Amino acid sequence: MNHFADRLLQAIEHKGSPICVGLDPVLERLPESLRGGVSPGRAEDAAHAIEAFCNEVLRLVAPFAPCVKIQSACFERYLWPGLRTYQRLIAEARALDMLVIADVKRGDIGASTEHYAAGCLAEPPYTDLGPLAGPDAVTVNPYMGADALEPFIRIATEQGKGVFALVRTSNTGGERIQSVKTAAGPAVADRVAELVAEMGDEPGLRGERGYSLLGAVVGATAPADAARMRRLMPRQVFLVPGFGAQGGGAEDVQACFNADGKGAIITASRSVLYAYQQQDTADWRSAIRRAAEQMAGEIRKVVG
Amino acid sequence: MNHFADRLLQAIEHKGSPICVGLDPVLERLPESLRGGVSPGRAEDAAHAIEAFCNEVLRLVAPFAPCVKIQSACFERYLWPGLRTYQRLIAEARALDMLVIADVKRGDIGASTEHYAAGCLAEPPYTDLGPLAGPDAVTVNPYMGADALEPFIRIATEQGKGVFALVRTSNTGGERIQSVKTAAGPAVADRVAELVAEMGDEPGLRGERGYSLLGAVVGATAPADAARMRRLMPRQVFLVPGFGAQGGGAEDVQACFNADGKGAIITASRSVLYAYQQQDTADWRSAIRRAAEQMAGEIRKVVG
Repeated sequence: MNHFADRLLQAIEHKGSPICVGLDPVLERLPESLRGGVSPGRAEDAAHAIEAFCNEVLRLVAPFAPCVKIQSACFERYLWPGLRTYQRLIAEARALDMLVIADVKRGDIGASTEHYAAGCLAEPPYTDLGPLAGPDAVTVNPYMGADALEPFIRIATEQGKGVFALVRTSNTGGERIQSVKTAAGPAVADRVAELVAEMGDEPGLRGERGYSLLGAVVGATAPADAARMRRLMPRQVFLVPGFGAQGGGAEDVQACFNADGKGAIITASRSVLYAYQQQDTADWRSAIRRAAEQMAGEIRKVVG
Repeated sequence: MNHFADRLLQAIEHKGSPICVGLDPVLERLPESLRGGVSPGRAEDAAHAIEAFCNEVLRLVAPFAPCVKIQSACFERYLWPGLRTYQRLIAEARALDMLVIADVKRGDIGASTEHYAAGCLAEPPYTDLGPLAGPDAVTVNPYMGADALEPFIRIATEQGKGVFALVRTSNTGGERIQSVKTAAGPAVADRVAELVAEMGDEPGLRGERGYSLLGAVVGATAPADAARMRRLMPRQVFLVPGFGAQGGGAEDVQACFNADGKGAIITASRSVLYAYQQQDTADWRSAIRRAAEQMAGEIRKVVG
């Protein structure tokens, strides 16, 4: 079984709940014991502290999360030390039997998209940089149209990976573009949804369970939108950010699932990573573990 | 004078033509003398060959080009060796007195955009990675709305830098989203243009010459679109890709300029970098120099 959506659905069944933990590490929010020795001008120190934290997070959430989403921005800001940490975390998450979504939101055309697909999604072909692993899936920005998706889809098809196109994002600022009504009636995001559904339905892209390797990012903060998106994209797996810190609750995400309780994966980042701050406890490991377990339980009830 | 648009306009006057050379290096298209020793599995070798080529290109085009655009995808695919090369080329271009646009097309929200703005645009604050320089400007994807632009604009304001938002891209695939008519009449790209014009007109964003530090990417392949974009965004500098290899000619770009011949910078990548292949000559240095000089002359005629 080498189709991304099949692998994802199986991993969800194995772990028992369709959740994804987002690794969006911020140096300033790390536990004092980890960030204490970091000098602000040293990228290597910052990357090491973040790596130590994220490795612990991976270990703590692995029993509950079929999937993690790694936010590349948090690592890119530390230049090459950050990028090395990012790549090591991809390998570590995969070793812990979690699927990895690289949240890179790249979007370009022509040869540039080919480069991004090779660099952000494909298995790295290099032998001179130590052991490397590519992610299982990637997020992509569709503003430049089908051209921005095609090279990613090709590599995903060849390598058993997935692609999530941004369709309706969870921020209110996105409404200014995505919610604009088109002359034909539907909003801009609906047109993007149609494009994604159409591209994702091309021959060879659907797995045994019926879902396409081309999925969609659909925010959890607008349930009516989510229900419409579900109708427009029945064969897309939805990656649903906005649970927890961004304001979405368990009921808000219900509309993102198909009637059989499948077809979506719900992601939370800050509400899990920084649970120890919300709970005002120094025992950050227990707080993270508890937050992941609790989230898994809440979402399980929604789809149950 | 520390406003990006003022600096760019001055650099254009100094060099005599509003052109930008795009560094989109592809290993397979490098001169044989540079790529001959590169083993395909070695990222370090590839990054070194690309760096040697790009350093020569920078030196050759510096007399003609006020500005270079560095396509990050071409470097990211070689992981950290690529990223080191990318950062060294930014520093090298600035040392040669050219402005540098980092063509990263990032687009995210909230804390992630803050990270991207810090990593892709700001002057790097690190002391442990050797000498570093940030670019003068960056390209950004606005599909997620104002949230995707604001942190970039803030850093640009603080550090005398610029931001170019994708509005109307040069690929035909982009039409599927960008050319969709909205219920109010104008196309989606026009609504994005309005957002960019509005955000770019906020207090403190315009320079002495009247242009905003928030510019727009507007393709050269649809002159009627470009003229409408010019009316919608009179205070935006247009970064115009698509000249040369992507099909746009000198007349096609005319509509991107204001009546005084200012307000746009025309970029070409492959038609300059690989001029030696089109001209079927082994003297790649002369071919690149000639292509840059010729392009500067053609565009000078358009704005003269």
